[in-house]
Amino acid sequence: MKKNIILTGDRPTGPLHLGHYRGSLVKRVELQDECEQFVMIADVQALTDNYEHPEKVRHNILEVLLDYLAVGIDPQKSTILVQSLVPQLFELTVYYLNLVTVNRALRNPTVKTEIKQKGYGDSTPLGFVAYPVSQAADITAFKATLVPVGEDQLPMIEQANEIVRTFNRLYNVDVLVEAQAVLTKTQRLPGTDGKTKMGKSLGNAIYLSDSADVLAKKVMNMYTDPDHIHVADPGKVEGNMVFTYLDVFDLQHDEVAELKEHYKRGGLGDVVIKKRLIEVLDELLDPMRKKRAEFANDKAALMGILHAGSARAREIAAQTLAQVRAAMKLDY
Amino acid sequence: MKKNIILTGDRPTGPLHLGHYRGSLVKRVELQDECEQFVMIADVQALTDNYEHPEKVRHNILEVLLDYLAVGIDPQKSTILVQSLVPQLFELTVYYLNLVTVNRALRNPTVKTEIKQKGYGDSTPLGFVAYPVSQAADITAFKATLVPVGEDQLPMIEQANEIVRTFNRLYNVDVLVEAQAVLTKTQRLPGTDGKTKMGKSLGNAIYLSDSADVLAKKVMNMYTDPDHIHVADPGKVEGNMVFTYLDVFDLQHDEVAELKEHYKRGGLGDVVIKKRLIEVLDELLDPMRKKRAEFANDKAALMGILHAGSARAREIAAQTLAQVRAAMKLDY
Repeated sequence: MKKNIILTGDRPTGPLHLGHYRGSLVKRVELQDECEQFVMIADVQALTDNYEHPEKVRHNILEVLLDYLAVGIDPQKSTILVQSLVPQLFELTVYYLNLVTVNRALRNPTVKTEIKQKGYGDSTPLGFVAYPVSQAADITAFKATLVPVGEDQLPMIEQANEIVRTFNRLYNVDVLVEAQAVLTKTQRLPGTDGKTKMGKSLGNAIYLSDSADVLAKKVMNMYTDPDHIHVADPGKVEGNMVFTYLDVFDLQHDEVAELKEHYKRGGLGDVVIKKRLIEVLDELLDPMRKKRAEFANDKAALMGILHAGSARAREIAAQTLAQVRAAMKLDY
Repeated sequence: MKKNIILTGDRPTGPLHLGHYRGSLVKRVELQDECEQFVMIADVQALTDNYEHPEKVRHNILEVLLDYLAVGIDPQKSTILVQSLVPQLFELTVYYLNLVTVNRALRNPTVKTEIKQKGYGDSTPLGFVAYPVSQAADITAFKATLVPVGEDQLPMIEQANEIVRTFNRLYNVDVLVEAQAVLTKTQRLPGTDGKTKMGKSLGNAIYLSDSADVLAKKVMNMYTDPDHIHVADPGKVEGNMVFTYLDVFDLQHDEVAELKEHYKRGGLGDVVIKKRLIEVLDELLDPMRKKRAEFANDKAALMGILHAGSARAREIAAQTLAQVRAAMKLDY
């Protein structure tokens, strides 16, 4: 049976956090043994809404790579590539732009929501509206069969598959491959403040690269139960971030269950459960910190990894592009 | 003094005709001695409204090249390139998409007019709206200082220069160069039917590649003066295509002036002036036909010319792209 091909990745706009770890990184480490996995650092896509701050994107490419290496994504097993180092993706993007109408692009629910969120109003850049087309180029260049996404990204896969079908029908070929969205089953990890999403701009994220001190401080400031004032008071477990995180990261489920009972009864202070969470998270992050430290000062080695992965990605993308050009009669 | 750099070219959607010859080809043959000239066969741009008929675009690449060679554009003096063989142009296009808003793109007067003409309605492809951005990539990649255009294409140069200014300001560099539009001074050559524009779709064009027979037939069917029924009748010279063409192509201006007087008085038949025009045009086209015949059967030589020119174009475009990437901090 043919191996599945996975395309996944991140926009290099900030370091990765526990939400990323839980939502996708763990899975990638698993899948790199079963599938052919492409992990893309999407600098071009990041530029569509950060073109005024390219230095931020540049800086975070290495941060994100360090996060990958820290969690165990192995450049020998996964192809880690930088989007802008695979020029075939630009060419595919430009060809696919002909296959999508302006109205269809503006109707994309994800794009619509994001235009509103970003307050673009009447000045939405063409590049932003076109970014699902650029994603279609990424997915199809590597002939990905599986693309792990959050629910909000489903319209992106739909758009990519529409392009695949239009292209294959129009040029009467079987060159491009439809991808299947793989929905993350794990629930989204909320921020330390209890907000539904962990995010850099919200200032409620615990980063994989946080030092022990920073981690401790963030956990000590976590949202628990505002009515749980004295240790003796009975406390609420639902919506209490410390328990939410313990549920996810503490493998001693029985002990966590007992702690919850105790907390609900009263007599268990926030500091106790927070210290436990710090310990649990430190155990998770400490090996990552060590791995990170191994590479962090060897910029040449990091760039070597990115260049090697991107070179391999170029090879694959060039094969697809040659087929695309042949289908379009551009194979002069 | 630094030589001017010219970017010019054609969409390969049909063979070139007398209107192209008069409006731009003559000038290119002159300018290739004075300037650094890039002549681009714009296959990617042609695909934005011909993506359903790529074979047409492919076929016409060689036709257009043969026309170039026939009129005397010399691959040793001008860089003749195929747009899709210069991948740097795709990458620049994608970056520039971030610098233009959807509304600005849709407000481009040329794009607006063409959307109406083509009857796109609600299904204008993104690629079509983005084609001025792709043109900006072409112009800036070669750092063109002069771009010969018709009046209807002025908004394209304006759009390109806007991108240049935005890019240089945003990244605080002096990398991209504004281009100056050079308006064609010659009046547009009307079609053989007297319509203001000579065009393939209008079926009123005399092609540079027309055989002597086809040429004769087209001239014999030319629009003259519908009220000039008998040879003895006085005839009208204004709007009479035979005289319009004689004015442009017959170098014996005195004789043409005499013929006009005679025609207006009456006593000069259409056949006489048509035969003269056939002779004049044959004299122009015959050397082109011979030159064409030299190359027409050597497809390998033709492709060689295109590949060599495109390789040179890639070198120049790669230099610009490296500067663009450095400005955008993408020079990993």
